[in-house]
Amino acid sequence: MKAYAERNREELLSLKAALEEQFQAEEAKGLSLNMARGKPGASQLAISMPMLDVINGKSDMNTLLGNDTRNYGDWDGIGECRYLMADMMEVKKDNVIICGNSSLNIMYDTVMRSMLMGVNGSTPWCKLDKVKFLCPVPGYDRHFKITELFGIEMINIPLGEDGPDMDLVEQYVNGDEAVKGIWCVPKYSNPTGITYSDEVVRRFANLKPKAEDFRIYWDNAYCIHHLYEDHQEKILNILEECEKAGNPNMVYVFASTSKVSFPGSGISAIATSLENMEYIKKFMTTQIIGHDKINQLRHVRFFKNIDGLTAHMKKHADLMRPKFEAVLDILEAELSGLGIGSWTRPKGGYFISFDAMPGCAKAIVAKCKELGVVLTDAGATYPYGNDPEDSNIRIAPSFPTPEEMLEATKIFVLCVKLASIEKLLG
Amino acid sequence: MKAYAERNREELLSLKAALEEQFQAEEAKGLSLNMARGKPGASQLAISMPMLDVINGKSDMNTLLGNDTRNYGDWDGIGECRYLMADMMEVKKDNVIICGNSSLNIMYDTVMRSMLMGVNGSTPWCKLDKVKFLCPVPGYDRHFKITELFGIEMINIPLGEDGPDMDLVEQYVNGDEAVKGIWCVPKYSNPTGITYSDEVVRRFANLKPKAEDFRIYWDNAYCIHHLYEDHQEKILNILEECEKAGNPNMVYVFASTSKVSFPGSGISAIATSLENMEYIKKFMTTQIIGHDKINQLRHVRFFKNIDGLTAHMKKHADLMRPKFEAVLDILEAELSGLGIGSWTRPKGGYFISFDAMPGCAKAIVAKCKELGVVLTDAGATYPYGNDPEDSNIRIAPSFPTPEEMLEATKIFVLCVKLASIEKLLG
Repeated sequence: MKAYAERNREELLSLKAALEEQFQAEEAKGLSLNMARGKPGASQLAISMPMLDVINGKSDMNTLLGNDTRNYGDWDGIGECRYLMADMMEVKKDNVIICGNSSLNIMYDTVMRSMLMGVNGSTPWCKLDKVKFLCPVPGYDRHFKITELFGIEMINIPLGEDGPDMDLVEQYVNGDEAVKGIWCVPKYSNPTGITYSDEVVRRFANLKPKAEDFRIYWDNAYCIHHLYEDHQEKILNILEECEKAGNPNMVYVFASTSKVSFPGSGISAIATSLENMEYIKKFMTTQIIGHDKINQLRHVRFFKNIDGLTAHMKKHADLMRPKFEAVLDILEAELSGLGIGSWTRPKGGYFISFDAMPGCAKAIVAKCKELGVVLTDAGATYPYGNDPEDSNIRIAPSFPTPEEMLEATKIFVLCVKLASIEKLLG
Repeated sequence: MKAYAERNREELLSLKAALEEQFQAEEAKGLSLNMARGKPGASQLAISMPMLDVINGKSDMNTLLGNDTRNYGDWDGIGECRYLMADMMEVKKDNVIICGNSSLNIMYDTVMRSMLMGVNGSTPWCKLDKVKFLCPVPGYDRHFKITELFGIEMINIPLGEDGPDMDLVEQYVNGDEAVKGIWCVPKYSNPTGITYSDEVVRRFANLKPKAEDFRIYWDNAYCIHHLYEDHQEKILNILEECEKAGNPNMVYVFASTSKVSFPGSGISAIATSLENMEYIKKFMTTQIIGHDKINQLRHVRFFKNIDGLTAHMKKHADLMRPKFEAVLDILEAELSGLGIGSWTRPKGGYFISFDAMPGCAKAIVAKCKELGVVLTDAGATYPYGNDPEDSNIRIAPSFPTPEEMLEATKIFVLCVKLASIEKLLG
């Protein structure tokens, strides 16, 4: 295939005419497909339906310790659920607090609490002139929305194949007292799908923060969300590494079962040092009497243990893999060699990250929308929705069926080509 | 019965000796009873068990509008659940946002958001020198804990038979810009069980707050929690009254099904003006993708409508009433005429409020504890845990069985007598 940039004006014009004809044909179809969010598809929801049978009106509702899950108590979660989530997060049960249905909510609460009340006794961030967060990019838009909402200044940190640019991270964290946090999705990162290398994790653990209240916000959202049984990526245990490095309190680890059981009806957890937990407890026990323990029991009775979780995730993988591969196959077949885009080939998680020619992402997303294919807004993977290159697009293959995914990707490819030509023609 | 205060020293000393003998006999029994918290009893939990059958692995999981409750979406709750909670709260569906399992959590979030980010665009409270809340007393300890945690100054307002002292409320709210809120449990108040009169509600609605960001925190926790079918107390609709009075944004109404279905596994809601909702939305949609909609569906499918809720609450009442009456009967039989205590006779809610002779509450609670009967800490019904009279004790009859309740109340009465005599003897 000849790269677009090497074609002359006449070739591009003639190609453009052909693509516009295809565009009109697709427009006439009046499709409605959504690749915007990391929503599990209907077939994935179906595999968790048996979970709704394990607790019924005749069930024994007591925990192993004999506590009634139907009543107040166990503010930090029932014991067996703390064990289950600890195993999923690869931490110790005593470091885990089970929360509600949303790990995003725990992150929001954690940032808001730090803003208003400080971190383990530090000055509340709202009393400071400036508070900054590092944001590996491209990253997760909902992380960035939290820090944006509270007026925290966000600094882009390029995300490479094995993690964030650690030279830059060290420079900021070790040098600037206003830097209070960094958003991380360390495994099967949203949206690029990369996993932090051992060296990156160790450099994180060995940071020497200028600010005593600096924390790593380690959103291990995809900890067990592999696509391939023969290629399961691993990360070093950040809690242990931080402890070894003499920074035991430097990290909060978050996870949930939103993409294991049901989005919105799963359980979430935070794992952190005992000292951090002690501080959090003071707030959490004022905020709420306790989270939904019947749902905790339901999860434990269904999954039983880490092996149950692993077996269940294999079913998810079997449903997700064909969709990922459909997208990747079409991108490969249609775009390789054209020099108008590059993309990631994740081994887990929920997204494929596509980099268009600079200045083309917004146009591509807009064109897709005209044809009835909704993508995440261009720019959403950057703080303030501002991708300085206007290049990155997040593709979420999970929600459509494989057939719809095929169709949607063909439209995406068409729009990439057309937007790129328009850009080249100027 | 001759009042203790009218007995002479010899009579008191001889009575004291007899009571001390009883005390030792009770001590030998080694009881363990808990009347500390408003926890539903086992028999109450049992009546909600069929709710766990209405959703199972074969259920249609779609809402009436066809939205899949198992996936992300409907951040403000599924439509039919908003209708159900609106009926329970006697407001319109469009004014309701369904939240997680805890109305306390919504209150905490609301106060914290106001502290950090202000109210509908007002100056964040954390930027002000002083923020004050009015606290009708005796009141709910968990309300006071929230305002205490954030360093909000709390001002005691005496709570009478028909509501808070409104002269005082008006004086503070209309005269002091630092007064930003008031905690209210308007129906079957915690702990005195009183219900606000229509005049009180109208005076609330017609406040002329000095602070534009003053809000009434209307915790309608016991809105359908009657004990007697032939005596169901009603309150005026505060949202409507505020609107009529030209104060449409002045109130947040909170409720939950914690004491309808399951404590910790119910659903909660906030009802307020559309303008307030618009402001809340910006934060809530950053905080969470959505709450547990499967549990919302479970509640709607089980209760169906307000009639279903009412019928269910009648079952609770049938279980609660004997416990309340057992307590009241013993108090009446053992203490009336002695001049060492007075108590309320609630027609709903979860508590009986007992006022001991000034300076005796802590001693009574401590004595009960020695005999294995745990009561709410003396002072808990006042801000900062400080009852200036050391008089009020909250009795929570719901958790023990009727038999246990009988035993616990006998012990309570014994301790009241003993502590009072010790006080009188000086």
